[in-house]
Amino acid sequence: MKRRFSRQITLGGISIGGDSPIVVQSMTNTQTKDVPATVHQIKRLTYAGCELVRVAIPDMESATALRQIKSHISLPIIADIHFDYRLAMAAIENGADGLRLNPGNIGGRKKVKEVVSAARDRAVPIRIGVNAGSLSKSILKNYGGHPTPEAMAESAMGHIQMLEDFDFRLIKVSVKSSNVPHMIAAYQLLAGKLDYPFHLGVTEAGSFVSGTVKNTLGIGVLLSQGIGDTVRVSLTCDPVEEVRVAYEILRALGLRQRGVEIISCPTCGRCQIDLFALVEEVERALSPITTPIKVALMGCVVNGPGEAREADVGIAGGLGYGTLFKKGKVLRKVAEPDLSKALIEEVRKMVN
Amino acid sequence: MKRRFSRQITLGGISIGGDSPIVVQSMTNTQTKDVPATVHQIKRLTYAGCELVRVAIPDMESATALRQIKSHISLPIIADIHFDYRLAMAAIENGADGLRLNPGNIGGRKKVKEVVSAARDRAVPIRIGVNAGSLSKSILKNYGGHPTPEAMAESAMGHIQMLEDFDFRLIKVSVKSSNVPHMIAAYQLLAGKLDYPFHLGVTEAGSFVSGTVKNTLGIGVLLSQGIGDTVRVSLTCDPVEEVRVAYEILRALGLRQRGVEIISCPTCGRCQIDLFALVEEVERALSPITTPIKVALMGCVVNGPGEAREADVGIAGGLGYGTLFKKGKVLRKVAEPDLSKALIEEVRKMVN
Repeated sequence: MKRRFSRQITLGGISIGGDSPIVVQSMTNTQTKDVPATVHQIKRLTYAGCELVRVAIPDMESATALRQIKSHISLPIIADIHFDYRLAMAAIENGADGLRLNPGNIGGRKKVKEVVSAARDRAVPIRIGVNAGSLSKSILKNYGGHPTPEAMAESAMGHIQMLEDFDFRLIKVSVKSSNVPHMIAAYQLLAGKLDYPFHLGVTEAGSFVSGTVKNTLGIGVLLSQGIGDTVRVSLTCDPVEEVRVAYEILRALGLRQRGVEIISCPTCGRCQIDLFALVEEVERALSPITTPIKVALMGCVVNGPGEAREADVGIAGGLGYGTLFKKGKVLRKVAEPDLSKALIEEVRKMVN
Repeated sequence: MKRRFSRQITLGGISIGGDSPIVVQSMTNTQTKDVPATVHQIKRLTYAGCELVRVAIPDMESATALRQIKSHISLPIIADIHFDYRLAMAAIENGADGLRLNPGNIGGRKKVKEVVSAARDRAVPIRIGVNAGSLSKSILKNYGGHPTPEAMAESAMGHIQMLEDFDFRLIKVSVKSSNVPHMIAAYQLLAGKLDYPFHLGVTEAGSFVSGTVKNTLGIGVLLSQGIGDTVRVSLTCDPVEEVRVAYEILRALGLRQRGVEIISCPTCGRCQIDLFALVEEVERALSPITTPIKVALMGCVVNGPGEAREADVGIAGGLGYGTLFKKGKVLRKVAEPDLSKALIEEVRKMVN
């Protein structure tokens, strides 16, 4: 798959677009002005592999809190602004590395010019973040009142034009919807028109399970077509899970590797070991590892040894025992109660 | 998206391929010969929306158990056979509606002919189910020892040829791998060569989260290209979750609708209600509903009302209250403690 060409931008030292790796980002759900809570969540996100973090700036107190937050964290921080250009000015003033705002919504050309000028002075990129749920009435009117992919693309083009009018091109673009085919179509439409990097996301994707499916589909279909430069999985749950799911998507597509990949079968009437318990135990024990490694946990001999051989290390279950493989070679048979310990030890040896 | 043409087959009264809806299937993980446990699991799968169920037939006792299992269930049942053609004969004898077996693995042409003849007599379709983990040595040799997409496709073509040699064409095909890009490529290769319906799946996909991501990517990318006629999500957990994830994929792609779709935001520093708890409560309470209905649960007013208007019924949160919407119209403001009850009541009214 050939990646869509996009001009590279830099946000707080992180490259986005061009031939940079796909960047993983998330957003805090704390009150931004609650500095300890926000810093704590950003540290948890950092540990999970998050590379950029966005925070909501609903008021001036949140904007000024950015300075203190930044002094405690290592990630570049993006200020999410709606409606009030003064919040954007204060966010830049207080060290925001990026902004997300839609210039059509902050009160007219003069205010856009002020924000753009401040952003340019500090090389702060701006994401045009169009959401199906908040298109302007005038655009909706052109599309029968519906937030179609064409309506979202038109909205994005209008906001972009306002920034380009002031010769500002440190731009990322997103066109999110909770409707996955719409979201895919909107990005595809823009891919033919723009060379700005794309921030991919499905918005209002729902709870953990349905949200994981929708994000994976929307983001995954586009990435599999070479479209997308940074991703934010959106789930109604702890944002650390968003980062986890983002890496699962990138790994499954072979775009980025991080941590332990567990290959395990669904089990069937042929399985003679307690594979569910084994997978759970091994997955939990190995979750802090960030080195890419492939571990196969197979219930039986039908596909087991074949898959286990493709993995860095693996087990194929028998009756009351498992066969431990490593790099395609049988190491030994291990009694079922000792399987997880033996496997975890092998993985740790490979990582250290 | 134009759907790939496939000839339609019928399995136990269920149409697969052609212009039939994408069929959702799963597989039991009980000991098949344990009839009460297997029947109980199939009933749970049926309740979840499963339309075809596969069971492992590792021995003669499991094959003969099929007759008794069938007398207690309403779903067509598929017998999963490896190595021993007598198990296939016994499964057909005992009422299997479909078989999954690879004719190259059951002991030679004479035995294939016997199985094909019995399958034809009862119009029992056979799925050629190629897995990357169990390709023959002779095929692997042609591809440098690696189960590449081309190797999987060649394996499928060889097995299919054996059935076609006996003029048998009640065929479904799958080419599964735990490597998602390989799996996608293998189906794409075959899509250009065959008109048999495809059973899509990612094999050994892993535990719930990473497995959901891998299945969604592999199955979703292909379905979004019009490829695929029946799907089996494969997870190392309760197979009822496989059915749930399958419907989430089909719904997100607009291919099938079942039950309540919850649109909910990830929350951010602007959210002033306890949305996580609300989503969890509403999702649980509405899970038995099978009527397609779209419910929006939004934390704040930025995208909230916009998205809520697109939904059948929804809430946008404020400080200590929520605004209840229905079919684009504001119904009333509701105090936060009463929100879930009010919303659930509205949904139930719409369903009855």
